[in-house]
Amino acid sequence: MTIETRLADMGITIPEPAKPVASYVGFTRHNDLVFVSGQLPMVDGNPSHTGILGTDSVTLGEATEAARNCAINILAQIKVACDGDLERIVQCMRLGGFVASTPDFIGHPQVINGASDLMAEALGERGVHARAAVGVAALPLNACVEVEATFVIR
Amino acid sequence: MTIETRLADMGITIPEPAKPVASYVGFTRHNDLVFVSGQLPMVDGNPSHTGILGTDSVTLGEATEAARNCAINILAQIKVACDGDLERIVQCMRLGGFVASTPDFIGHPQVINGASDLMAEALGERGVHARAAVGVAALPLNACVEVEATFVIR
Amino acid sequence: MTIETRLADMGITIPEPAKPVASYVGFTRHNDLVFVSGQLPMVDGNPSHTGILGTDSVTLGEATEAARNCAINILAQIKVACDGDLERIVQCMRLGGFVASTPDFIGHPQVINGASDLMAEALGERGVHARAAVGVAALPLNACVEVEATFVIR
Repeated sequence: MTIETRLADMGITIPEPAKPVASYVGFTRHNDLVFVSGQLPMVDGNPSHTGILGTDSVTLGEATEAARNCAINILAQIKVACDGDLERIVQCMRLGGFVASTPDFIGHPQVINGASDLMAEALGERGVHARAAVGVAALPLNACVEVEATFVIR
Repeated sequence: MTIETRLADMGITIPEPAKPVASYVGFTRHNDLVFVSGQLPMVDGNPSHTGILGTDSVTLGEATEAARNCAINILAQIKVACDGDLERIVQCMRLGGFVASTPDFIGHPQVINGASDLMAEALGERGVHARAAVGVAALPLNACVEVEATFVIR
Repeated sequence: MTIETRLADMGITIPEPAKPVASYVGFTRHNDLVFVSGQLPMVDGNPSHTGILGTDSVTLGEATEAARNCAINILAQIKVACDGDLERIVQCMRLGGFVASTPDFIGHPQVINGASDLMAEALGERGVHARAAVGVAALPLNACVEVEATFVIR
């Protein structure tokens, strides 16, 4: 089963890659190594979920969905890196997950699972990655989560 | 002197690698490059030191010991990546150190030295690495420190 | 036009690389991949701008200038990695930008643009990179910004 078929079964359409918020690019590639810029949970040009975990502004479930949106936006960048052919993905090597949170919030792994689970579900074995998940003070556009990635493609 | 001998001299037993708190793996490898997931200071299944630096919940000394525990857990992951033979380590390329801290704490380098010093002591020249150390709002399981790593192995 | 000429036109002198604040090195290299340690906005041995974005201690403009100083310090490290010849730079692959900020600050991209713009201006196409920009609780030496980097050199 191809990654595109899996994504279709999951009801996911890969969007146009989100435009960088500032002066950089969505990914760089050197040989088979691709660095994907930190992706916000952009949907149709706006962050799907804003706020700080540990406050009333956003729930764990909403932030998990936001992380999933970040992962979909990562796939959008990788699709461009692969000239449109997601089968050229060899491995998602690493996700770096940043969760906007108060000092007493400790559910960062659950939030970033929204991105990790999407990767594993969409890419299968090729989506299994190393990861760091931390709680930061704040994120661009008041997004509640940001995820960056490193891939190997062929 | 082998790395295992050095570790024995330091009184350190490499533990079983800590299980990921969520849906990802402890490390990924592509050719000679290994990405190790962010390690918490887990000892016997629980974080050795919790809290936020700059509050009464944890001291600089305790956090430095926690960072050392993170580094030991990184070695546990790398040992698996090396099929048990730590001599296959070529270089610790990078440590990414995250310290849970208040806005007025500035001793992050001293905390992450707990990890850096362990690497240099255990791996010698092969343990000398690039590094980033920052103060984050909060970490999984209320751990006071988390360290991720990139290695080259053969 | 060489990178050194561009830098001269910009009125920038590459300083001696900043000494690590703790027990690690300024960069590591494996084959053509270089990891540069998180650089603070050190100028003549002290951070050029300290404080937390979102408070009265530092302005957006000052922090942007601090990020630019971080980028200059990254170039100082890379110059050593290249044995003094910046023309050996193939590509700035990734910048990781950390901005000390309050929970309600959202201008992290603008701050880190200080580093991104410097890279693009100094290195041209070779300075165009992937990036993550996040808001952290605090940074070493009370610096308002820290930037780490990954490069490919030949």
